[in-house]
Amino acid sequence: MATLEIPALIARKRDGGELTPDELAGFLGAYLDGEVEDAQVAALLMAGVIRGFTEAEAVALTEVLVRSGDTVDLSALTGPTVDKHSTGGVGDTTTLIVAPLLAAAGAQLAKLSGRGLGHTGGTLDKLEAIPGFRVDLSAAEVATQVQEIGLAVAAATSDLVPLDKKLYALRDVTATVASKALIASSVMSKKLAGGADHVLLDVKVGDGAFLAEPADAADLAELCVRIGEAHGRRTGALVTDMSQPLGAGIGNAIEIAVAIEVLRGDRPGDRLTDASLALAAAALELTGVPSDQAREQVEALLADGSALERFRAFVAAQGGDSSVVDDPRGVLPAAPITTGWVPPAGSVQGFGCRRLGELAGRLGAGRMRQGDTLDLAVGLEVHISTGDRVDGTHPAVTVHARSEEDAQAVLAELPDVVRIGDQDAAPVELVQARVGLG
Amino acid sequence: MATLEIPALIARKRDGGELTPDELAGFLGAYLDGEVEDAQVAALLMAGVIRGFTEAEAVALTEVLVRSGDTVDLSALTGPTVDKHSTGGVGDTTTLIVAPLLAAAGAQLAKLSGRGLGHTGGTLDKLEAIPGFRVDLSAAEVATQVQEIGLAVAAATSDLVPLDKKLYALRDVTATVASKALIASSVMSKKLAGGADHVLLDVKVGDGAFLAEPADAADLAELCVRIGEAHGRRTGALVTDMSQPLGAGIGNAIEIAVAIEVLRGDRPGDRLTDASLALAAAALELTGVPSDQAREQVEALLADGSALERFRAFVAAQGGDSSVVDDPRGVLPAAPITTGWVPPAGSVQGFGCRRLGELAGRLGAGRMRQGDTLDLAVGLEVHISTGDRVDGTHPAVTVHARSEEDAQAVLAELPDVVRIGDQDAAPVELVQARVGLG
Repeated sequence: MATLEIPALIARKRDGGELTPDELAGFLGAYLDGEVEDAQVAALLMAGVIRGFTEAEAVALTEVLVRSGDTVDLSALTGPTVDKHSTGGVGDTTTLIVAPLLAAAGAQLAKLSGRGLGHTGGTLDKLEAIPGFRVDLSAAEVATQVQEIGLAVAAATSDLVPLDKKLYALRDVTATVASKALIASSVMSKKLAGGADHVLLDVKVGDGAFLAEPADAADLAELCVRIGEAHGRRTGALVTDMSQPLGAGIGNAIEIAVAIEVLRGDRPGDRLTDASLALAAAALELTGVPSDQAREQVEALLADGSALERFRAFVAAQGGDSSVVDDPRGVLPAAPITTGWVPPAGSVQGFGCRRLGELAGRLGAGRMRQGDTLDLAVGLEVHISTGDRVDGTHPAVTVHARSEEDAQAVLAELPDVVRIGDQDAAPVELVQARVGLG
Repeated sequence: MATLEIPALIARKRDGGELTPDELAGFLGAYLDGEVEDAQVAALLMAGVIRGFTEAEAVALTEVLVRSGDTVDLSALTGPTVDKHSTGGVGDTTTLIVAPLLAAAGAQLAKLSGRGLGHTGGTLDKLEAIPGFRVDLSAAEVATQVQEIGLAVAAATSDLVPLDKKLYALRDVTATVASKALIASSVMSKKLAGGADHVLLDVKVGDGAFLAEPADAADLAELCVRIGEAHGRRTGALVTDMSQPLGAGIGNAIEIAVAIEVLRGDRPGDRLTDASLALAAAALELTGVPSDQAREQVEALLADGSALERFRAFVAAQGGDSSVVDDPRGVLPAAPITTGWVPPAGSVQGFGCRRLGELAGRLGAGRMRQGDTLDLAVGLEVHISTGDRVDGTHPAVTVHARSEEDAQAVLAELPDVVRIGDQDAAPVELVQARVGLG
């Protein structure tokens, strides 16, 4: 593509027009080759964020992203291959429950994950709270482990979708993150490059999620599903509530402990349990299991301990101390200070969910910038959900802190972040929409 | 300004908000200091091009541009100081007529000019067609010459409005040129840095200009005038027709010859003569001369040869061969091939004005990229205007070419570019709007 054409393509997007797949491929290919400048891509992205990218552009952009690097070949695996992705939220540890559930059901998950920035670490960071756990597996190690026990979680290499990393770094500093097409193509390119035939997305909606409006979340879910199907992958999505923390834990070791408690069956009726069962059942549906049968199957695999045993095998296979499964709170790192917050009696009206995440980040659970060291032990444990009654005597939140000072600072903010009132409040529906599923 | 705030400022513009003067100054100051990336500025500019910059933002941006470099101090000059700027068009040589007219009327013009890209060279290039003419004057030389004879035209140094050069280079490759606020602040920053107390703008409208719509041109003129007045300069603008070449010449030496012919009084009633008189009178109005008196004064200064003698003194002062004034076509470089194009009889319906300029550029009169060498002798001479009758026997256009082959290539295109028809056509109004004038 001649460099001279680049401004003309930017101008077309600026004026609300559409770029063809060949034009997008040429533009971004030249960018990867160093012939197009960051500034030109930033201008195109800003024009697209404001004017909107079409579905055809999102599909084409996803393909350009996938082709920018290596892809994982899972064709040697014998079971149905599944990948699962959450758009991210507070207390969201479903992967660590859904993956062993699906493995126990005979599916195979080779999950490649990142670390990223946020109020807690990513899945890799959380797993590293288990003593000895290693995430730097080779492609061959991943393949062997998945064939043997049905799941592996490893750090994504930089050879996978390199253009996405380059574009994300640019979007982050140019206020061009907020585009459904850019988000969908970024998410789906990594899923497509990951090689699984079945892709389940968990699109979060609410104050603690990237998208606050249910209609926006449903649009994003539908766009992701269409992109996946356009590339020949069976794709579905659930839109789930993120107006409150999904799991009781917010923090790295705390989330692992809570996930194991779910797998042990210690948290029946817990929202994290419900969400994990719904996601696992939806993933099985994608592989061809009828809806009601899928739900029964995952409930049984949780109840009979099959999922827990898969998790144990998974921890052991990746070098971790598998006794964590029997005594999570004993084996995982613990914070020196734990303090309960007891709100006045009343009903839980709702949460400042994002702010709860930020409080955990402030305790040391998250990274503000690349290279920050995480404190894996600290965080929050939230014992209540919207609609619950509190009696004025039991702790609603437990703060796990490195120092008394840190704990007091968070305690002082909790009354603003957890809204307690006199009136009864309704619980919030967990699964708000199903997309691409029966 | 903390780098962290930059994406938040871009996001505000993306969402249609406004930046304060301090925020714009901080953003672009950090850009000049290398702390903000090209990509971030490109994103801001694209957001502003699509969402629109407010008048307050344009005023603030102009000030940031002016403060980015040196400014010219004309306070030692004794007469009213005037600057004049055209947004650019085809056959537009008014500066070379207006400046000596105003000098003859007692005003003082220190005009700093560029070379730029386009279908012909800039004013500096055109003047260099006069043997010996030099444009690289020092600031002291400019001041002395303007005090003595009332005018000087010199190359702008890179110390003047450096941020404008940096931004323009970025806008050029990112399709963010087309913004009234960005254009107005770029134009006005150079006029403000140039130091004159009175600023007259010639905003062109039509197919051969940057803006094709009269309403857009009037908006741009009004914005420029408001920016100038907000910075304490008496500012006015004419919106003038660029649906056809303004002067008969399109090419460097040819335009100088035509301008001298206007100054000699050889082209009465010619559109270039009319435009120059209107612009010179408007500039005098800005200095306080009543409107009707201003027009009479410039007509008299043209008729009695005063303006021509100022031009002669100007050429001599800058080292040029001043006999060009007596025999322009003999002294200026001439192309080896001149061929007339005779259209069929009819009425001139109109022009592909931009394409006429491009034909001159193709003959060698213009620069396609920085550093291209100009052929100062070549170009077109257009003997007709919209609404004229042509009789089928006289040449309507004369092609001045380096080779017979070049000439034939242009002759073959002229029937598509000059529209002749049977129906009578109305002449186009030359001055379409007056802004900031009495």
